[in-house]
Amino acid sequence: MPYFDTASAAPLHPVARQALQAALDEGWADPARLYREGRRARLLLDAAREAAAEAVGCRADELVFTPSGTHAVHTGVAGALAGRRRVGGQLVVSAVEHSSVLHAADAHAAAGGTVTEVPVDRLGAVSPDGYAAALGSGTALACLQSANHEVGTVQPVAEVAEVCAAAGVPLLVDAAQSLGWGRVDAPWSLLTASAHKWGGPPGIGLLAVRKGVRFAPQGPADERESGRSPGFANLPAIVAAAASLRAVRAEAEAESARLRVLVDRIRRRVARLVPDVEVVGDAERRLPHLVTFSCLYVDGETLLHELDRAGYSVSSGSSCTSSTLTPSHVLRAMGVLSEGNVRVSLPRGTSADEVNGFLEVLPGAVAGVREKLGVGEPVTVAPVAESLELDALGLRCPQPVIELARAIGRVPVGGTVTVLSDDEVARLDIPAWCAMRGHDYLGESPRPGGTAYTVRRTA
Amino acid sequence: MPYFDTASAAPLHPVARQALQAALDEGWADPARLYREGRRARLLLDAAREAAAEAVGCRADELVFTPSGTHAVHTGVAGALAGRRRVGGQLVVSAVEHSSVLHAADAHAAAGGTVTEVPVDRLGAVSPDGYAAALGSGTALACLQSANHEVGTVQPVAEVAEVCAAAGVPLLVDAAQSLGWGRVDAPWSLLTASAHKWGGPPGIGLLAVRKGVRFAPQGPADERESGRSPGFANLPAIVAAAASLRAVRAEAEAESARLRVLVDRIRRRVARLVPDVEVVGDAERRLPHLVTFSCLYVDGETLLHELDRAGYSVSSGSSCTSSTLTPSHVLRAMGVLSEGNVRVSLPRGTSADEVNGFLEVLPGAVAGVREKLGVGEPVTVAPVAESLELDALGLRCPQPVIELARAIGRVPVGGTVTVLSDDEVARLDIPAWCAMRGHDYLGESPRPGGTAYTVRRTA
Repeated sequence: MPYFDTASAAPLHPVARQALQAALDEGWADPARLYREGRRARLLLDAAREAAAEAVGCRADELVFTPSGTHAVHTGVAGALAGRRRVGGQLVVSAVEHSSVLHAADAHAAAGGTVTEVPVDRLGAVSPDGYAAALGSGTALACLQSANHEVGTVQPVAEVAEVCAAAGVPLLVDAAQSLGWGRVDAPWSLLTASAHKWGGPPGIGLLAVRKGVRFAPQGPADERESGRSPGFANLPAIVAAAASLRAVRAEAEAESARLRVLVDRIRRRVARLVPDVEVVGDAERRLPHLVTFSCLYVDGETLLHELDRAGYSVSSGSSCTSSTLTPSHVLRAMGVLSEGNVRVSLPRGTSADEVNGFLEVLPGAVAGVREKLGVGEPVTVAPVAESLELDALGLRCPQPVIELARAIGRVPVGGTVTVLSDDEVARLDIPAWCAMRGHDYLGESPRPGGTAYTVRRTA
Repeated sequence: MPYFDTASAAPLHPVARQALQAALDEGWADPARLYREGRRARLLLDAAREAAAEAVGCRADELVFTPSGTHAVHTGVAGALAGRRRVGGQLVVSAVEHSSVLHAADAHAAAGGTVTEVPVDRLGAVSPDGYAAALGSGTALACLQSANHEVGTVQPVAEVAEVCAAAGVPLLVDAAQSLGWGRVDAPWSLLTASAHKWGGPPGIGLLAVRKGVRFAPQGPADERESGRSPGFANLPAIVAAAASLRAVRAEAEAESARLRVLVDRIRRRVARLVPDVEVVGDAERRLPHLVTFSCLYVDGETLLHELDRAGYSVSSGSSCTSSTLTPSHVLRAMGVLSEGNVRVSLPRGTSADEVNGFLEVLPGAVAGVREKLGVGEPVTVAPVAESLELDALGLRCPQPVIELARAIGRVPVGGTVTVLSDDEVARLDIPAWCAMRGHDYLGESPRPGGTAYTVRRTA
């Protein structure tokens, strides 16, 4: 049963499991104690820190273990902002950061700070110029992910780091998605990561703070982990995290090349096998194992359910699969279609057969969902009016776009269709549909009970 | 090799290990996902929460898992204080709380709040009257441990909870040391605990917040664990924590009775076998497995080292075993001797033979340390002056007290010895020595470079 959501959580790497077992026997005591069990725990902790620091590319005394990647981000952002409070209160983040970074930014704004979001292009990448424009004399910290967790696009971290260095602003790099594949090759100031993303155990994040970076830990004091991560050390998991990071790194080059081929295959075949699909993210500058695409006229939750029934576990940024009924902020920032969204992230060891099996199942699953929604082959209809207005109030994604697609043939080339919708996703998906179909998106205007989106037919 | 420091960390319970193994296979996925691996993880998480809530004595939706007991305390204190910000900014804690509570209190004070410490008696217990006196109209929260982690004294939680309820103040009970032995039988508002104290894995704390208690989580938002504990759930450890809590509870009554007998033996024999010793804490209202005593004229670090060499791992609240060179705040609050301090906390399954072995080794170890320090049998000397002043500047614990003991015979009954010391511990240990020896402690006064402590010989 192939599991294709390793970007959410990876099954435990065999090396992590072995190390965890051993450390449960040897490393349960308090490493601050002077007796033999404590000294043994201290040796294990020191060795794990050395190994993790080597993999990160920093000194051991620059790295602490936290209870999760989210904790690493929250702690890193808060500590760096507080350390430079006198410089100013501006935090600069990309629009496509992980929610842990954006939530830390929200907390900063709620506490009176300012937050500037750097936009991304349609492939999901920031530009160094975007950071240069955002940085100011009052910027305390900039954050940028090494690679995007939803679409796989690799960010120009080295170039952004240069821009930040020139402005004297520390850069925090969230390396959660990429650290298992290699070091972040850039002069970052702070770096965060999460062990369960590379096959390590849950419960462990990494926070590295370069010497010389001003850092003031927030929250109650605690003497452990250089005062940067409170609570009793989860030593067995730390040992397992460090051991598995070394192990996946040893395999990274070969496995990356192998998975890159499989993902290229998915990118090509999905575009060919599934009608009305948009494969998103950068085709070249990307994570080796991750690909995301969106299918027009498809309800993401139903599609995930169909794929799950067929034995494939994937994830989605569609609004209907989120508890808030809003689409992924990443897809929104990129301005790409969110309906029928599927993220495939291959675990290490995924076979070509498993990928081929997925590609066999997918077209039928998409077609099945479309059939349920009553989406058939486009029927040639005669135009009935120069302009039409559709009342799609109360309809949820993907229905407003389906209604629009049905109606566009009923106006002549040059004519307009206006969709009245109260579904927040329409704001993203109607322009994205226009871009995919080549129609002109004329814009939106407020209406009682919703928003009117107007499209001009071009062909 | 007997390990007698289970109050710091307990070796993993076999049930915890089994559950962890199973959950590593079944529970590594994101419980928020809709595919089969996610649904399986969700089932495990829900079952673990039910089991833990049953053991705590609360509803499942009142309990969240945190990355440690320290996180549970920090989160619980901050959330409860913020939830009652409009009531006022006073936090009431006992003087002998775990450092995680006191550090949370320090952070509250640093942020402009007020903190009131309720004192304890010489046995380490608070009084309900102490809480009644401390609570005011601006009290946002009161905290009390269920039992003390250093001396084992059980606190009158039910009575203090009544006092708090009468004042309309929520009570947070830190049950870290006692939860494995039984429910906290009191109407608490919030409760915290730590799994690795009962034989569960490290990396898991519990925070229960009763329905109706005002609670405003602090820090960046996160949708997991009811918004009260951010980061990816450490599900294998959660499952292991819940399973082991049930397991230790099933054994608690029998094991508690058995260990209580062994600790009674230690209490009696230590007082008989070791000269100049003070067994501290309540002999009756105490944890079943924990006993603490302090030895006059002994360097705690050297004693721990000797016991470690003899095969016994114990802990100490002596200043010389802490990185800050200050004695345990618990011993200080109790006003008992801190030098040569030893805490013995027996793991489940400790045998009578292991305890007997320790009692055979201990007197020799203490005597050996005293010999190294040049402490011999008291020699009868003739008084040389009505009052003596000793310059003990630069000497560290236990030397100032050793010097005092040597000098007291050189003044007549009614005469005084003044010890000039710059060791912070002298402030605690000189009065404690007087109490043990029956001499009068006359007080302290500042001197250039230190403090003068004056003692009147009574016999």
